[in-house]
Amino acid sequence: MTISMYSASAPVFVRMFSNLLQWLDKAEAHADTRKFDSANYLGLRLAPDMLPFTRQIQIASDAAKGAMARLSGQEAPKWEDNEATMAEVRARIQKTIDYVKSFSAVQIDGSEGREISIPRRTGDPLRFDGETYLKHYALPNFFFHVTTAYALLRHAGVAVGKNDYLGN
Amino acid sequence: MTISMYSASAPVFVRMFSNLLQWLDKAEAHADTRKFDSANYLGLRLAPDMLPFTRQIQIASDAAKGAMARLSGQEAPKWEDNEATMAEVRARIQKTIDYVKSFSAVQIDGSEGREISIPRRTGDPLRFDGETYLKHYALPNFFFHVTTAYALLRHAGVAVGKNDYLGN
Repeated sequence: MTISMYSASAPVFVRMFSNLLQWLDKAEAHADTRKFDSANYLGLRLAPDMLPFTRQIQIASDAAKGAMARLSGQEAPKWEDNEATMAEVRARIQKTIDYVKSFSAVQIDGSEGREISIPRRTGDPLRFDGETYLKHYALPNFFFHVTTAYALLRHAGVAVGKNDYLGN
Repeated sequence: MTISMYSASAPVFVRMFSNLLQWLDKAEAHADTRKFDSANYLGLRLAPDMLPFTRQIQIASDAAKGAMARLSGQEAPKWEDNEATMAEVRARIQKTIDYVKSFSAVQIDGSEGREISIPRRTGDPLRFDGETYLKHYALPNFFFHVTTAYALLRHAGVAVGKNDYLGN
């Protein structure tokens, strides 16, 4: 018995995005209690030269949809990145969950050796086989943006904790 | 071909800790340029009720050593968590890398179905099979603490970027 490419990708993305929706519940409750607009979270940054909350969500979304598309040999759909309210951020997350769930195991399994090429703004594209891409690029990149979104909420006073992060 | 439990764990931990050591190079260079003691990073927190930098490293270390130990059916060694300088933090990371590298694939492979129990401060322990534990607990928890360490350095003005994070 070993881990399949599908089981190492789709359920991880779905679980973390589902957890994220629950952090947003807490974030909105916090905003309601303190009487501020929950859209105020969307522009928060951990550093002035770091991307804001909404971009962290959009890139986590792109990381997940890109992984599913690339591993299955499809083109990822382009989404507009125009979310401007918490409701739209939620809808983006749900859309990503639905997209990930639209794949079946048979479309992803066996992609360990598939050639994956990631274009970069400068220099040659990054090239991986499917397994290296998933373990050392797609998943770390996904967790990076999801954790940064969590950190921004936590930094802003939202009472999320490790169990919310892990979904236990 | 599928992913082995070893290849989904040990190389991921080693790669991210190796990346982390390079973020610390940049953090120390930043401290030197600004003429402050690099130990000042160790107590930084993203929120007053969040654990500081050194604890993020220690827990990432524990996540990796705990995963290797549990998946192989061993007891994880207890380490003291008394790092008080950047050099000691580096040594903790290197010790963790060495510990992870001390395992061979044959000790970890086949652990998909192993019963894993994680004690909690309150309530019943969390119970998983080895595969669920690795994908939905150990790796997310590890990335959580490594990314939070990164976020603390980034928030403190250290010029780390996504390529430093991913090690590309």
